[in-house]
Amino acid sequence: MVHDVVIIGGGPAGLTAGIYVKRGMLDAILIEKMGMGGQIIVTDLVENFPGFLEISGADLAIKFEQHARKFGLEMKGMLEVNAIEDSGKIKIIKTSEGDIETKSVIIASGTTPKKLGAKGELEFIGRGVSYCATCDGFFFRDKEVVVIGGGDSAITEAIYLTKMAKKVTVVHRRDELRAEKINQEHAFSQPKISFIWDCVLEEIVGKNIVEKVILRNVKTNIISELKTDGVFIYVGLIPNTGFADVKKDEWGFIITNDKMETSVKGIFVAGDCRVTPLRQIVTAVGDGAIAAVSAERYLEGS
Amino acid sequence: MVHDVVIIGGGPAGLTAGIYVKRGMLDAILIEKMGMGGQIIVTDLVENFPGFLEISGADLAIKFEQHARKFGLEMKGMLEVNAIEDSGKIKIIKTSEGDIETKSVIIASGTTPKKLGAKGELEFIGRGVSYCATCDGFFFRDKEVVVIGGGDSAITEAIYLTKMAKKVTVVHRRDELRAEKINQEHAFSQPKISFIWDCVLEEIVGKNIVEKVILRNVKTNIISELKTDGVFIYVGLIPNTGFADVKKDEWGFIITNDKMETSVKGIFVAGDCRVTPLRQIVTAVGDGAIAAVSAERYLEGS
Repeated sequence: MVHDVVIIGGGPAGLTAGIYVKRGMLDAILIEKMGMGGQIIVTDLVENFPGFLEISGADLAIKFEQHARKFGLEMKGMLEVNAIEDSGKIKIIKTSEGDIETKSVIIASGTTPKKLGAKGELEFIGRGVSYCATCDGFFFRDKEVVVIGGGDSAITEAIYLTKMAKKVTVVHRRDELRAEKINQEHAFSQPKISFIWDCVLEEIVGKNIVEKVILRNVKTNIISELKTDGVFIYVGLIPNTGFADVKKDEWGFIITNDKMETSVKGIFVAGDCRVTPLRQIVTAVGDGAIAAVSAERYLEGS
Repeated sequence: MVHDVVIIGGGPAGLTAGIYVKRGMLDAILIEKMGMGGQIIVTDLVENFPGFLEISGADLAIKFEQHARKFGLEMKGMLEVNAIEDSGKIKIIKTSEGDIETKSVIIASGTTPKKLGAKGELEFIGRGVSYCATCDGFFFRDKEVVVIGGGDSAITEAIYLTKMAKKVTVVHRRDELRAEKINQEHAFSQPKISFIWDCVLEEIVGKNIVEKVILRNVKTNIISELKTDGVFIYVGLIPNTGFADVKKDEWGFIITNDKMETSVKGIFVAGDCRVTPLRQIVTAVGDGAIAAVSAERYLEGS
């Protein structure tokens, strides 16, 4: 069986693409390597998706999934894509459970948080090192934690961590934050949060669990130590695009035009994994709709 | 007083831009020539904005407005923009109630339904001719109506009109519809709807109110008459961009890059009034967020 379209990724972009292709009466299947929802599942509070004044990422993910289900989208979780073979009119999606044939593909596979590469980082994952405050913050009740990074994710999660941690120290390699100003204001006015500027994480030290971090000031090269129970790392995103042989930028984000077309006919992209000036739920859903309509038009012409 | 940003237009694009600029701690005002909500106010049912399985356009507009209000966006309705004067760092918005000075502008002024130009069309507006089934359909209970057009708006509204009208005839100048397939299926399976293909509206005839339409077959030139009580016209969109002296396409849609920047520094555009492959709520909100972030970055650098 050859599908009209296979959507890779079950976040806001993929699920919205699913809503639109099903409304376009296409035969479609969405596959996702984890559960439905994508990165928003691990987002504590979403307050910038218009129409929902305040909603947890997990609840919004459920709504998106229900919406796609309403229009009959077939969805398969826990299925990872290894490669896309392009034989022109037919693309073969190579997955961990065999091949799926399709006339078109919408890649909405998102991004993965970047590792820092510090000594001890991988060793202490799950024993004090985390990339998701919403997932692991609970384990740090009344403890002291360090957050590495200065962007929106770092600052949002630092604020979140103040709910349970006794003290949150944000360590940033620059002397100012990159985060949205409203997030900065929130963080600066939060008494539990303190900041260490111009510093990078050199090493995470402990016996069985994290006990301290060793920091280096990038301006003075002075080394300092900080006792801590946990390290939350938010230093960037890696696009999940290794399986796709299409044109990308130097970091692996897929290059598209405004129709979400890639360098390969019949392969479209939506959401965080493409080159785009903004990575938000609100932009991902727009991308998903455009990719779906472009796929429909491609199929009509094929 | 000079604002950081003035947003022109209170539809999904403008209100989302408002949410984002206020979260960015900017001083902003949104002005709208009618009430808040834009074109969605006159949309009966929205079922393709992810997260809301079924919602009326009017209810969704209220949610968007509440959301912008939550972040403190100042909004002024019933205020029309006549021109934007660009003096470099400062732009002057010329309105029906005086000038507003601002450092940046986000144009999210949407589109207006196109007039057909048929004889009798303007004469019978409000006396049988309408551009909005949701607004006027109620007046045609148990009557016969004609819908002109073959796109999504035409077909969606034809389906809507079957709720009250006795008979709905879709007149289209081509021999197939342009509407989404799911809408086509709905329309074809609806017994109250019939289709007249390859025909254009030559004239609307009546004494005080619409009594019949005169159609011309574009392939055979044969003229025919059809008795009707109402004529609903859905033949395209005119961008509301006359006040803006920025680069546009031949129809007046504003040309942007992927950051929503226009040909004039400090003027950004979002939503239906720009050149874009898809005009949907879901794409308008994404545009609004991007325009807001681009305006923030412009202001930081200025």
